[in-house]
Amino acid sequence: MSTDSNRSWQMTGFGLSRLSQVKDEIPEPGPHELVVRTKAVSLNYKDKLIVDGMLIPDLSFPFVPTSDAVGEIVAVGRAVSRFEVGQRVLGQVIADWADGDAPPVLHKHTLGSSLPGMLSGHVVFGEDAAVLSPPSLSDAEAATLPIAALTAWFAMTEATRPVPGQTILIQGTGGVSLFALQFAAAFGLRAIVTSSSDEKLARARELGAWQVINYRTQPAWDEAARDLTDGLGVNHILEMVGGDNSRCSLNALAADGRMSIIGLLGATEISFPVVPFMRNRITMQGISIGHRRSFERMNQAIEALGIKPVVDKVYGFDEVPQAFAHLEKGPFGKIVIAMT
Amino acid sequence: MSTDSNRSWQMTGFGLSRLSQVKDEIPEPGPHELVVRTKAVSLNYKDKLIVDGMLIPDLSFPFVPTSDAVGEIVAVGRAVSRFEVGQRVLGQVIADWADGDAPPVLHKHTLGSSLPGMLSGHVVFGEDAAVLSPPSLSDAEAATLPIAALTAWFAMTEATRPVPGQTILIQGTGGVSLFALQFAAAFGLRAIVTSSSDEKLARARELGAWQVINYRTQPAWDEAARDLTDGLGVNHILEMVGGDNSRCSLNALAADGRMSIIGLLGATEISFPVVPFMRNRITMQGISIGHRRSFERMNQAIEALGIKPVVDKVYGFDEVPQAFAHLEKGPFGKIVIAMT
Amino acid sequence: MSTDSNRSWQMTGFGLSRLSQVKDEIPEPGPHELVVRTKAVSLNYKDKLIVDGMLIPDLSFPFVPTSDAVGEIVAVGRAVSRFEVGQRVLGQVIADWADGDAPPVLHKHTLGSSLPGMLSGHVVFGEDAAVLSPPSLSDAEAATLPIAALTAWFAMTEATRPVPGQTILIQGTGGVSLFALQFAAAFGLRAIVTSSSDEKLARARELGAWQVINYRTQPAWDEAARDLTDGLGVNHILEMVGGDNSRCSLNALAADGRMSIIGLLGATEISFPVVPFMRNRITMQGISIGHRRSFERMNQAIEALGIKPVVDKVYGFDEVPQAFAHLEKGPFGKIVIAMT
Amino acid sequence: MSTDSNRSWQMTGFGLSRLSQVKDEIPEPGPHELVVRTKAVSLNYKDKLIVDGMLIPDLSFPFVPTSDAVGEIVAVGRAVSRFEVGQRVLGQVIADWADGDAPPVLHKHTLGSSLPGMLSGHVVFGEDAAVLSPPSLSDAEAATLPIAALTAWFAMTEATRPVPGQTILIQGTGGVSLFALQFAAAFGLRAIVTSSSDEKLARARELGAWQVINYRTQPAWDEAARDLTDGLGVNHILEMVGGDNSRCSLNALAADGRMSIIGLLGATEISFPVVPFMRNRITMQGISIGHRRSFERMNQAIEALGIKPVVDKVYGFDEVPQAFAHLEKGPFGKIVIAMT
Repeated sequence: MSTDSNRSWQMTGFGLSRLSQVKDEIPEPGPHELVVRTKAVSLNYKDKLIVDGMLIPDLSFPFVPTSDAVGEIVAVGRAVSRFEVGQRVLGQVIADWADGDAPPVLHKHTLGSSLPGMLSGHVVFGEDAAVLSPPSLSDAEAATLPIAALTAWFAMTEATRPVPGQTILIQGTGGVSLFALQFAAAFGLRAIVTSSSDEKLARARELGAWQVINYRTQPAWDEAARDLTDGLGVNHILEMVGGDNSRCSLNALAADGRMSIIGLLGATEISFPVVPFMRNRITMQGISIGHRRSFERMNQAIEALGIKPVVDKVYGFDEVPQAFAHLEKGPFGKIVIAMT
Repeated sequence: MSTDSNRSWQMTGFGLSRLSQVKDEIPEPGPHELVVRTKAVSLNYKDKLIVDGMLIPDLSFPFVPTSDAVGEIVAVGRAVSRFEVGQRVLGQVIADWADGDAPPVLHKHTLGSSLPGMLSGHVVFGEDAAVLSPPSLSDAEAATLPIAALTAWFAMTEATRPVPGQTILIQGTGGVSLFALQFAAAFGLRAIVTSSSDEKLARARELGAWQVINYRTQPAWDEAARDLTDGLGVNHILEMVGGDNSRCSLNALAADGRMSIIGLLGATEISFPVVPFMRNRITMQGISIGHRRSFERMNQAIEALGIKPVVDKVYGFDEVPQAFAHLEKGPFGKIVIAMT
Repeated sequence: MSTDSNRSWQMTGFGLSRLSQVKDEIPEPGPHELVVRTKAVSLNYKDKLIVDGMLIPDLSFPFVPTSDAVGEIVAVGRAVSRFEVGQRVLGQVIADWADGDAPPVLHKHTLGSSLPGMLSGHVVFGEDAAVLSPPSLSDAEAATLPIAALTAWFAMTEATRPVPGQTILIQGTGGVSLFALQFAAAFGLRAIVTSSSDEKLARARELGAWQVINYRTQPAWDEAARDLTDGLGVNHILEMVGGDNSRCSLNALAADGRMSIIGLLGATEISFPVVPFMRNRITMQGISIGHRRSFERMNQAIEALGIKPVVDKVYGFDEVPQAFAHLEKGPFGKIVIAMT
Repeated sequence: MSTDSNRSWQMTGFGLSRLSQVKDEIPEPGPHELVVRTKAVSLNYKDKLIVDGMLIPDLSFPFVPTSDAVGEIVAVGRAVSRFEVGQRVLGQVIADWADGDAPPVLHKHTLGSSLPGMLSGHVVFGEDAAVLSPPSLSDAEAATLPIAALTAWFAMTEATRPVPGQTILIQGTGGVSLFALQFAAAFGLRAIVTSSSDEKLARARELGAWQVINYRTQPAWDEAARDLTDGLGVNHILEMVGGDNSRCSLNALAADGRMSIIGLLGATEISFPVVPFMRNRITMQGISIGHRRSFERMNQAIEALGIKPVVDKVYGFDEVPQAFAHLEKGPFGKIVIAMT
């Protein structure tokens, strides 16, 4: 890609047919900003929901979608002190959440949502909203971290920090789920993975799953999970689906168990019976990616533990529509766009 | 009451009409047990549900209901080391929950549920399931602590421990709610109390409420609560109702807010939308009374802080049906039966 | 004071005699900076150590000492978004500690230490290193918060968060200690205050102390503290002295007790016997003021709880030497300089 | 060993020469007690201190030393409900610490200290002071758990729970240290091990150490540790020595670091400078084995993670003096006595 102009994929309306390539100027950095030449971008399921008009109905067009990018700093504002030209960085998606509690009004400064997204040859990060990329990862691997890895990491190290030896049930084999599986294996947790595909479950075993459940052949997966845990139930569940699936998750949980609400693949409402929720003193918590400090800790751990993100397929810059189509079919791990 | 026989109120079936007085032998203590002459018993809303057959449909009769009692130790088993005759004690309702996480299978040993209840002249506690009664309280006051006070205390000091200055919204003016209000005032929290009665709200203000909301005149009490907090929402809500009320509670919560699920006065299901739950990183936790260590810490605090439980009315032993009828009408604080 | 020039007290060497008034230009704000006209400044014991050359032996002169100021914003940089002209603000002393863990290399950006201090008519804060002043406080009261109040608050709400009803032993009646006492009373803790003056102890009682110990008449204050707690010891101690005093503090602590190391009035080393430290599972933690988020939460609580800082005496701008002399004698609460 | 009589090693005074074999009756269980035929006993350094008269100067003789045993239940009291004859169990050393905070007066009921020790053919446990032995371990391996493993586990999962990817410095290669190393590797922590022996350090690497430091060839091991962590320092240190070694540990710690005080091989006092302790907000905590719930969680994790305790050598029942002599020389891992 030439550095003289800036290629992007832009939405001019909802639907994949309204997503098209454009060219414009390479941006200049403000005093505390970094201009980054993107090297790889990864897709998340919410990007598909945004492109389809399901998540942000009042989006202003034109809009560049997606939130996750890795790239090289090519220019820095004159007041920048945390980074320099040449470093490889990742963007912090909730740009104004540095540590601790999030800002009271959320998502005023979120990449690919209230702020422009990453499907551009060059993007701009505030210097307080970027982190160094783990050196051991390729560009395609690094691009998968900002949402999928940080969501799993935050749910498993910040929102709670499970005792080693405990069980965690991970639903499916998408991006967040496979990071959760790799983290669980590295942290000394026993991971139970659910999927409708025996082939995906076999690969989950290779990544460190302790047990697997095919919910197509075992629709009562909650009872199967209880059986695997001597009837006690699992300690932690990453809920990716919502709706009636949460009801099964509640039934699969042990006393004092925790359900992290991460995804809504299946429904926009959650409902469950109150009595067992109270009796078993269940905790249910909504997860919304994570803060920059946690991102930095995660990257340190990814280096220390030698974790390699699972990339299902890398597409070229011109293949964005095909990449979105793949996402809809349910990949094993992450879909990445090579930007160069 | 003569010490020669043991008067009790016993259920022989469901419904208040099947609750009647009987006499039998005064029990003997096992090696690690205490025999306690009851001095006062308090009622909880779940006692009414049990008497009416709504909570434990497969109850075995005859059954002595209620869970909360204070009394004097009149005999101890030969292996007892924690107590002696003459001390005034309260029973730990979840008898096998001493500290930390509860036993995996809950409510195998719960007073007035899987174990006999307290409406007897003499009752038996395991020595590990009793605590000293706070000396500054009268019998009627002390009898209110085992469920109502401990539930509020546990939700506010163990399940979470709020930062002073934060806001807590307390629904209604029943037993748990008034303890929560008194604790909030003593801990430096700003309590918002809701009720349908201006007269009860005026009394809540006297007990230390920072703000009050009459949900009859302000049905959008969630928006009223947001307005009282500069639009940010409240930090902690004690949910006493369930059902669609939880939906309002979710809307009234601040980012990073917490909802403690304590009661189900209104419905046996909870449902809510997933997106704001995730976006605001809400935590929802089921509360089930508390453990004995927490009971001991609470009693120490009640002494230290000079807290006096709010007793709406004390009934005589022969007035148990009238006491249950009062409970149904929504008392301000606790209903107590004097046992002597 | 005229706004045309900027009066300051500057050190040109160590010792009070080398502290003198100078005039220079009023500063201009950088893009993310605020220029604040100071209204009041408070002194901390460490300011005296710095002026005397005890704390930062390699200080570069000239140097304006002190860290705590309240003032009105008179100019903002063009990129500032968090504040506007006319607001009354306080400076965050560890300017680069916004939340969570502190920066790994501490005190690179600390007011009155690595950054210039506050004894100037106008000072500059980064917009990320300022907080709104609580509106209910006078200027003199507000000026006491940045170090003394935040140190006590952080030790009692962030580093740990005690269970209401527990005991806390507070050493002395200086600035940090009186804030700790007022917070303890507001949080439902039982505060034991030590001092060598019965008159100060009487005033501590008025501020909410549960018990007091005169360590002149009771040199074995640790045993006195154990006696006040039925021989169990106190749950939390704010250690202000160091040296052998810490040995007494350790002896005064209950099992599972905590000692927050806040001051070093007496010695620069701490030593204690290992066996009781291990046996009683004591926790000892160094406290270093606190982060900006905690400052904001504290200010909210100060408003909510109606806490009024204890100001011993307010001096005029020309009386800075007298103010330092007073500090050395051990005031009851804070010493403040009125800047206008 | 015949079941007709009970062989023990008994102290009749201080010193190894006063430790000798005796025979007496096999004990009978009280109502809530278990009689256990011991299969293996492990030694701890504190056993040597007790035999030598260094730790409990006022010990009453005769006294059976040591605290760690595994065995088979051969009789249960008539009120026992948690166990049955034939199960293989381990004793909970602090017998009255089931969960949460320890009892206020510690070590009133500690095996091998205030209660008789384990060097007997048959021993008695309260049913609340025993746990099931992990089935995957041999008797010799299981016998190492009650003090050494639980101390390391408690320091790393209960007293604090480190973020994966963080660093932990482990001093030496004794029993506690090697468990800490194995746990660190299983939990995703980077362990730095110190020793004076390159051969032991090589074996530590095989057990999963990330880095090793020979403190004989690198006496400034604290600076070496800082170098290994890019100058930032390590996050957690298990202090096994005390005295001036703690001073080095403090220097080796990162900001917000933690020192768990576990051993006192070198000195009975700890001293350190206050200023860096406060500036870096260090936490120092005394560790005293752990509670029964934590023991149960650990055993579950040992099974889940496939951890095999490191046994340096197993001695026969008649070789107890040789076993103690070996202990003094500094074994690599644990010394065990086979009891059958």
